Amino acid sequence: MFATDMVSAIRDGHITSRKIVGSCLERIKADAALAVWVHVDAEGALARADECDRLRQSGRPLGRLHGVPVGLKDIIDVAGMPCECGAAGMAGRVPETDARLVEALRAEGAVIIGKTVTTELAFMQAAATRNPVNPAHTPGGSSSGSAAAVAAGHVPLAVGSQTNGSVIRPASFCGTFAIKPTAGIISRTGVLATSGTLDQMGVFGQSLEDIGLLCDVLGGYDQRDPASYARPRPGMRAGAAAEVPIEPNFLWFDMPYFDRLTPAARDGMEELLGALGDRVERIDAAESFAGFIAAQKIIHGHEYASLLGWIVDESPEGVSPGISQKSQDAIALGRTYGQDAYDEAQEMRRQAMAFFATLFTEFDAVISPAALGEAPLFEEGTGDPICQTIFTLAGLPAVTLPLLVGDRDLPIGVQLAGGAEEDDRLLRTANWMLTALAE
Amino acid sequence: MFATDMVSAIRDGHITSRKIVGSCLERIKADAALAVWVHVDAEGALARADECDRLRQSGRPLGRLHGVPVGLKDIIDVAGMPCECGAAGMAGRVPETDARLVEALRAEGAVIIGKTVTTELAFMQAAATRNPVNPAHTPGGSSSGSAAAVAAGHVPLAVGSQTNGSVIRPASFCGTFAIKPTAGIISRTGVLATSGTLDQMGVFGQSLEDIGLLCDVLGGYDQRDPASYARPRPGMRAGAAAEVPIEPNFLWFDMPYFDRLTPAARDGMEELLGALGDRVERIDAAESFAGFIAAQKIIHGHEYASLLGWIVDESPEGVSPGISQKSQDAIALGRTYGQDAYDEAQEMRRQAMAFFATLFTEFDAVISPAALGEAPLFEEGTGDPICQTIFTLAGLPAVTLPLLVGDRDLPIGVQLAGGAEEDDRLLRTANWMLTALAE
Repeated sequence: MFATDMVSAIRDGHITSRKIVGSCLERIKADAALAVWVHVDAEGALARADECDRLRQSGRPLGRLHGVPVGLKDIIDVAGMPCECGAAGMAGRVPETDARLVEALRAEGAVIIGKTVTTELAFMQAAATRNPVNPAHTPGGSSSGSAAAVAAGHVPLAVGSQTNGSVIRPASFCGTFAIKPTAGIISRTGVLATSGTLDQMGVFGQSLEDIGLLCDVLGGYDQRDPASYARPRPGMRAGAAAEVPIEPNFLWFDMPYFDRLTPAARDGMEELLGALGDRVERIDAAESFAGFIAAQKIIHGHEYASLLGWIVDESPEGVSPGISQKSQDAIALGRTYGQDAYDEAQEMRRQAMAFFATLFTEFDAVISPAALGEAPLFEEGTGDPICQTIFTLAGLPAVTLPLLVGDRDLPIGVQLAGGAEEDDRLLRTANWMLTALAE
Repeated sequence: MFATDMVSAIRDGHITSRKIVGSCLERIKADAALAVWVHVDAEGALARADECDRLRQSGRPLGRLHGVPVGLKDIIDVAGMPCECGAAGMAGRVPETDARLVEALRAEGAVIIGKTVTTELAFMQAAATRNPVNPAHTPGGSSSGSAAAVAAGHVPLAVGSQTNGSVIRPASFCGTFAIKPTAGIISRTGVLATSGTLDQMGVFGQSLEDIGLLCDVLGGYDQRDPASYARPRPGMRAGAAAEVPIEPNFLWFDMPYFDRLTPAARDGMEELLGALGDRVERIDAAESFAGFIAAQKIIHGHEYASLLGWIVDESPEGVSPGISQKSQDAIALGRTYGQDAYDEAQEMRRQAMAFFATLFTEFDAVISPAALGEAPLFEEGTGDPICQTIFTLAGLPAVTLPLLVGDRDLPIGVQLAGGAEEDDRLLRTANWMLTALAE
């Protein structure tokens, strides 16, 4: 059931929030083997659902997510709820205050079900979550649980974050819709910081309107987040439901990493491009694209080590029992990037932003695969974020649509990236594409 | 020009924000003798107006107050702008962060013109502001400048605060619309605290829809404000524009202080009650009303002394040059209220809330004068807040409509108070009354 339908069914009295939340909790219980949730607040969620139902019955105002269950990646603080960021070293951490985005959810009547599994410190060390489409496979990461929670139908909506490819990739692997909005739209105050420059919030849902609605609720100016901007936000739900004024134009870059696409991903994209016909212009990726990818790695590594290196430093031997070897190696690698390399990488990022700023007058979206292929086997890790790297670096909005299927019957998403702060237009374009392909 | 009209005129390209802001700044300059503003950020406001115009021209999203000038009572922090709370002891204070409500304004494209005059520490010591209707008279207080700024047409919208009668009374004296929404709807984080229990934000405008729109923008959950609640807010602009499902019922209490009404206020209200006919039920005020008024005085005094007594204590002689004798006396008086008296007063407040909670099933609003009469002469102080005391104590939403005129041709407002968190219904009722009386 879509979140938008839940909102209207609750409003019109066809169903109660308690019934919806109760059935979510049952599905979560039945799916325990998928290891999607690290903390489920059944009691709190039911009490909140009852409050939402009482408010409705008394004729009080209904929020834009009134009575709708939402899951939150376990790097997002909720007052009084454990938030351990997937790291043994943070076990037992219970924040006293809500992340800013949690305040926004509460003000709109959302029901917070609990915390979804993240990879360790939102990085590479895989967690226990399985892909609901086929549990032998990874759901992707780092927002593993948020993607799986929506794919498994536990909740209609979940929040994650992306520093490289941690929202769009798991959505691609699990077959859900997702959007990583323009950097600065959703506040990160109260969310684990892994890279001040690159960390960006994103959301998972089962329709474009649903993810647009959630972004509308979460978006807003927050002076405590240096990336947040003091300007109006795009109306994303309205964008997802809007008609295009003229048929949109797409751009396809032959990316330097496309030699690593699986045949299914390549063939699926070719078929799609064929269907879009002359609405797509294909061009070679600029040589600078390889530089952009290197820049993301340096900024991410450098800032990750600066922000999280204390976990290693606190341990006298320089090897913390609190985090995995993989994360310790990442911190060590990040520390090898000097200030000059970092400054150059930031300059490359500015160039990436300037390059992309020129594209979206003529074109509505850059089309590309959302992942190199289907979800890898669980044992092979959480997959490669490369298909998001450049767009995340430039802070552009990116959406994935679950349109393709691979050889193993697992989904592959189609990614559209749009102009900065034009998330409404991006969702409008995505909706046009869905409709056009269905005809 | 109404704020709602500015928003659509800017959106449709009929006028620019720069033109609107420029003309505001000219009027402010021409009216310097009214002493409405303590700080005008002409440069910042014009730069922001230009940004709003650029955003519109580039097709970027427009906020709900896109390009609209707003004034803020000088107890509301704006990063980098002086905020001296009308007190010599706070001269030179420049906060580094925005109040929460200022963030909300920025996110919706509002243009902050500057800071309006407040009485000293938002209490009784009058400031220099004159009533724009007749400068020989007071504009009322403590939100003196915000009321006067809207009445003089400097800005279409301004924000103030009310701990006793500091929004509705000056609006009555200056002839503007105003609403003091339900306690907890608008965050007070970043606003001078004078009473944790009673301080409530309010807004001034020239129509019900305008004040509803501003409240919609400012409302939201903020965990840092203990009064803020984690539930959806009423849709106030929609409420102001809505049709009533059935003709509303009003309640008139013969209040213990009505012997102090001026003849003009009394006659005006009688005429109004006559026009409303059997839509009004008149009853004697409960005996407890006198207790409610006493309770407000004790809570206000006790908390004011606790929060602001430091200004006196910092001075070795116990008499601070930083604040007036009147404020020092208020602090001294507040300190005479012991804990028992305070606890009893809080119990009275709970009784007031319980009493009013039962009224608004049968009745839509309590109707009463917004002030005892016209604005006093400037030399006589800022007037009596008694007509708001009980409703502020109970945290109920209250709106004033500039419907009456006194013997000196000065306005007198009609106050409607509604059920807690039913601000939308209150504005709908107010709009019905405006229309009914105009027919």
